[in-house]
Amino acid sequence: MARALSERAETYSSRIGATLNLRRVLVRDPEKERPVKIDPGLLTVRPEEALSGDVDIVVELMGGEHPAYELIKDSLSRGRYVVTANKEVMAKHGPELLGLAAEKGVDVLYEASVGGGIPIISPLKRDLSANEISSIRAIINGTTNYILTRMSREEISFNVALRQAQDLGYAEADPSNDIEGQDAVYKLAILASLAFHTHVRPEDVYREGITLLSPQDFRYAAELGYAIKLLAIARREDSAIQARVHPALVPEEELLAKVDGALNAVQIEGDLTGRILFQGAGAGSLPTTSAVMADVLDAARAVVQGGRPLPWRYTAELSIRPLAELVTRYYIRLEVADRPGVLAGIARAFGDHAVSIASVIQKQADEAAQTAELVIMTHPAREDAVQGTLLELRDLPEVVSVGNLLRVDG
Amino acid sequence: MARALSERAETYSSRIGATLNLRRVLVRDPEKERPVKIDPGLLTVRPEEALSGDVDIVVELMGGEHPAYELIKDSLSRGRYVVTANKEVMAKHGPELLGLAAEKGVDVLYEASVGGGIPIISPLKRDLSANEISSIRAIINGTTNYILTRMSREEISFNVALRQAQDLGYAEADPSNDIEGQDAVYKLAILASLAFHTHVRPEDVYREGITLLSPQDFRYAAELGYAIKLLAIARREDSAIQARVHPALVPEEELLAKVDGALNAVQIEGDLTGRILFQGAGAGSLPTTSAVMADVLDAARAVVQGGRPLPWRYTAELSIRPLAELVTRYYIRLEVADRPGVLAGIARAFGDHAVSIASVIQKQADEAAQTAELVIMTHPAREDAVQGTLLELRDLPEVVSVGNLLRVDG
Repeated sequence: MARALSERAETYSSRIGATLNLRRVLVRDPEKERPVKIDPGLLTVRPEEALSGDVDIVVELMGGEHPAYELIKDSLSRGRYVVTANKEVMAKHGPELLGLAAEKGVDVLYEASVGGGIPIISPLKRDLSANEISSIRAIINGTTNYILTRMSREEISFNVALRQAQDLGYAEADPSNDIEGQDAVYKLAILASLAFHTHVRPEDVYREGITLLSPQDFRYAAELGYAIKLLAIARREDSAIQARVHPALVPEEELLAKVDGALNAVQIEGDLTGRILFQGAGAGSLPTTSAVMADVLDAARAVVQGGRPLPWRYTAELSIRPLAELVTRYYIRLEVADRPGVLAGIARAFGDHAVSIASVIQKQADEAAQTAELVIMTHPAREDAVQGTLLELRDLPEVVSVGNLLRVDG
Repeated sequence: MARALSERAETYSSRIGATLNLRRVLVRDPEKERPVKIDPGLLTVRPEEALSGDVDIVVELMGGEHPAYELIKDSLSRGRYVVTANKEVMAKHGPELLGLAAEKGVDVLYEASVGGGIPIISPLKRDLSANEISSIRAIINGTTNYILTRMSREEISFNVALRQAQDLGYAEADPSNDIEGQDAVYKLAILASLAFHTHVRPEDVYREGITLLSPQDFRYAAELGYAIKLLAIARREDSAIQARVHPALVPEEELLAKVDGALNAVQIEGDLTGRILFQGAGAGSLPTTSAVMADVLDAARAVVQGGRPLPWRYTAELSIRPLAELVTRYYIRLEVADRPGVLAGIARAFGDHAVSIASVIQKQADEAAQTAELVIMTHPAREDAVQGTLLELRDLPEVVSVGNLLRVDG
């Protein structure tokens, strides 16, 4: 960011009709070696010093909830525009911070918090604002998409794929926020809040990570015509919203199924536009700089133009629909005893819960253990009925184990 | 548009903090039956009446260069914001109209002129403004993409596919603007002008339509691993721009190759974001309404906020590189005499012009006519050298005819 600001100063000032000056840089350790040369006189470790004086725009890139949240709040209170890449703060405190910004006649801009360099916040706030949005379906975590792409192509286990991702810098040493889906939850909460004009909190989003996926799941999914993706899904149904992050079977002919590696993609459905897809690099220093600097230039334009930015309004009162009420199709993988009559008992368990089976494939009989693998695809069914079925299946003597349950989306 | 404005009045006013009122509707024939009910008192046939009085925003949806251009100019001169879907006017007169808007402290907004409901003008103006854009590659004409998709899937001729497209409403009775590439030229001129901050005029764009494509071209392209798409391409190379619209061979693994039917897609490469793809419905009444209304809401926000919109600046002075200097790979299909030694003469013609052959496939010998079809793929070569080769080939006795020349992109 500092590099773009200094190297492109002339271009940027010609684009906004004003000069951008880096006034202060708040750091933890001023002695640390930095990839970009910054005038040491600008460095400070004291927030008070960073925020005081003649500053129009504060850029927050520290990450994490604290003290970023307090710093953003403090900046807005002083009437500064704030540009942030902080998904956790915006997912948790977005409405409060946007409200404070409106009160002070400034704005908080957070394009870089979701989808890296892909424009997505701004299209939701502006370009799609004539639409009623009905759904968001997104691949918004590059780490997990990279891991899933490797697992799908190379038939390797989750742990091997994770280690490779770590070796190549696609996953952090502590990858839990990514692989458990928390990162995607923050991002989805931000997108859903914008799309539906209501505050969707991170705890409103059902979350399931990718750690339980096995190579078989990818093999069977491919046979059935699906890719497996960690999807972030938010749908509006009447006055309720369903929001969830979990691995899902996506029909392989869909563009979302073809978004591979560390790429991100967001598909938005509006009642006027129909389905729109945005795709690109979801992370990385340069794409993040692109988004942060776009917001900085936007804030600078607002400062130059004068006038009060129009506050973002949460105009809808929508409830959150619990996952139990989800209706979708399911993929269920079971390890069962390999003997006659087994399928009848299993089918009965599904029937007891009014879950209708669409297809059954028997796989990989293990002669030594006298077990076989069953892959069952259901017709659309309610989540609670399917979970009830699973409970009953676990108690059946002929079911050795429940391998995995995956939802189909698309 | 009128329907959205009346049916969603409450939603829109809650989003912008002001009420949008339809003040006047300029029509040719006030007696005509309309799909939307409009208060007859609002209809007028006199431009003067439509533009006078208390109007903040003028929406121009008449299409065509005249009198739309004069009407937009007149509106801006009176200090109105203008929202337009008019690609021809914006491609030809964009700089003048944007300059006039800046002078009057208003703006002219034209999101609907390219890509229907896909946000693309606004991302270029705002979200990608921190980038130096190096290329645009786009499928921005739904009619031709629909026709090419049918030709590719069904091995039918161009004329049959065109007739089907007309029957289904995907092509107009007079389709020439679409199939000859002129519509895509206007749109590319608009996108390139924004991306490169310089005025790219329609006549700066090389244009070639899709009428010469034959079913064989699709078959051979598929064998070689390519789709055929009408691409609109603009690339910046140092201080020159190359802009062209023509059918191109696109590697089938690229997302652009998978954009089928009437969909549009725009891929933009920026030095910070990398490659970003926007995809969605490129035409139709609802997607166009989405884009027009987004601009109307944006203009309304600007009116409510006060302040002067920051003018768009053409900051770069770039030249247009002639097609003759293009370097790319080529696909050349020839009908040749089917006798020994023919290939030697043909290869010599390529060699004479320093065009290096990458592969040759001999196809479909017609025994009765004693002819065969040759498909030649070149290594990267200059356009003028390839055209020189073609001239020489046409004079060779062993060449019966030159079937087609297509450029590879990707």
